[in-house]
Amino acid sequence: MAAIEEGKVSDGLAGPLDQMECVSFPPVNRFAICGGTHGNETSGVYMVREMQKQKIEKVGSVSITTVLSNPRAVDACKRYTETDLNRCFTDALLSAPITDSTPYELRRAHELNAQLGPKGSEEAVDLLCDLHNTTANMGLCLIFYSLDWITLHIYKYIQSKITSVPVRAIQLDIAPSEAYSLEAVGKHGFAFEVGPQPNGVLRADIFNMVKEGVDLTIEWLQQFNSGSTFEGGEVEAFTFAKSVDYPRDPATSEIAAAIHPQLQDNDFKLLRPGDPIFLSFSGETVKHEGEELYPFFVNECAYYEKKTAFHLARKSTLTFPSIRVKKD
Amino acid sequence: MAAIEEGKVSDGLAGPLDQMECVSFPPVNRFAICGGTHGNETSGVYMVREMQKQKIEKVGSVSITTVLSNPRAVDACKRYTETDLNRCFTDALLSAPITDSTPYELRRAHELNAQLGPKGSEEAVDLLCDLHNTTANMGLCLIFYSLDWITLHIYKYIQSKITSVPVRAIQLDIAPSEAYSLEAVGKHGFAFEVGPQPNGVLRADIFNMVKEGVDLTIEWLQQFNSGSTFEGGEVEAFTFAKSVDYPRDPATSEIAAAIHPQLQDNDFKLLRPGDPIFLSFSGETVKHEGEELYPFFVNECAYYEKKTAFHLARKSTLTFPSIRVKKD
Repeated sequence: MAAIEEGKVSDGLAGPLDQMECVSFPPVNRFAICGGTHGNETSGVYMVREMQKQKIEKVGSVSITTVLSNPRAVDACKRYTETDLNRCFTDALLSAPITDSTPYELRRAHELNAQLGPKGSEEAVDLLCDLHNTTANMGLCLIFYSLDWITLHIYKYIQSKITSVPVRAIQLDIAPSEAYSLEAVGKHGFAFEVGPQPNGVLRADIFNMVKEGVDLTIEWLQQFNSGSTFEGGEVEAFTFAKSVDYPRDPATSEIAAAIHPQLQDNDFKLLRPGDPIFLSFSGETVKHEGEELYPFFVNECAYYEKKTAFHLARKSTLTFPSIRVKKD
Repeated sequence: MAAIEEGKVSDGLAGPLDQMECVSFPPVNRFAICGGTHGNETSGVYMVREMQKQKIEKVGSVSITTVLSNPRAVDACKRYTETDLNRCFTDALLSAPITDSTPYELRRAHELNAQLGPKGSEEAVDLLCDLHNTTANMGLCLIFYSLDWITLHIYKYIQSKITSVPVRAIQLDIAPSEAYSLEAVGKHGFAFEVGPQPNGVLRADIFNMVKEGVDLTIEWLQQFNSGSTFEGGEVEAFTFAKSVDYPRDPATSEIAAAIHPQLQDNDFKLLRPGDPIFLSFSGETVKHEGEELYPFFVNECAYYEKKTAFHLARKSTLTFPSIRVKKD
């Protein structure tokens, strides 16, 4: 079931779902759209630049802030220059003192937290959406930490409007204080993760998916702020279970196999015991063992260094109530 | 028509093609297979490592040298560290003195030229095959400089054996002294260019294409050296005509459009005047103008920095004679 953080339900209707009719929330007026948090994930870079060029700062009730999160990494067309910016937004790292030896990305995280947060405060932007790409065949995914009903409704809305590509939700079950990525800075937040797209390459089809996701989010915010009631219901979400590393040569620790062709490009297709997952360079097949789970981030480029060939998830059904804006 | 470099036909049969029955060549015994010339093109890296692990140094009449061309770039998973190694093999650069300020890759080019060449000399390996990947949807391509009949026959052989993916030939019409890439160091040489594969990602399907190409090359060399006659005939090849840059913002020089979805992934599909080639971030279509040509390297990651969105080629038919090994 969808968790909701304390303080977000402002009208006292929180309680067991079957007792709730409609939950009301304050308006979601201040919307931050960030790109280039990873400098070689191009959709967000060009999306943010285009919105800045067109001076899109206000759409109806929604004020929009666009941010190029990691300009040095964008210029170098690298994921990051010194450390992964999108692992810098835990409470501990955001409260650590800045010294001469602080990596560029951690200093940048403090700047972003000052501009868009501070994380966990009343001053934080109402909604933060961070734009990412993956080399995995994941279509359009929304990634959340603890689910909240605003972001779940946005997900449901986008899913109902986009039919050209699968739209899915991924939940990382991590406490707010430990939440490490940029979207955790907003009062509400999620990442768009869109692929497949090679790092450093810009594909029009993927760019257009990201643009459609952003446009639909703004559309939803407008309708929500203007008083529309959004009906409750159910959605499916994938909850992170564990990561799987590549088979490695015991002598050199180098990878000894590639993702099996039957798994490659089949993100979110249920993996059963005995299904092939790796093909070694000498031609042997490695099979999945253990419980049935859903693979995602299959052959994501950036995860080689994190020793992850793919993640596995459980699928669950999330039930959530109708919501509407809180009247003054 | 296929050009053949002076000195390669050793039995005096060179001449107008209709006068030739069968051209003979010395055995092609010494075969060098190079990978990691670009450090983030993984097929060659893992192919070379696997052959070294399996100690594949001799297959029948063929002695095999495997080389990881740019180990620093491989370790960093970058195309190169200081300058593009695969632009360092011109006669001028290979004869330039090495100084303290010489980039790593140029020093490495001198080492490779000493190991596998020297370029243009009798000591050079008989055949050099360099393994590359592209983010473009190019299938399996063999890239040659001036075509010679050994490499054309290898191309024809591979094309006749691989049916799962298109196999094509690309000719760069560049004089030997100006030939800048590693394969120019061998007496005969070509690059395998295989895609689509993101930089830094290893796909089993692409790895297997590269492996099949290498295995078939070795098979051909064995048959050639053992006295088989290979029948002449015709093949199609694509000859580089020109490069096309992205539309750019006049103020910032940043790219203002992506490859159009109708061109993306359609390498080698004839481009006619009026066909869409770019889609701007604000939604406008840019169309192809001028003569009908064949696009290739469409949206190749590494060519963003070279200001190339795609190359264009002419298609031609190459006629070549039967060949056999020269008897002592």
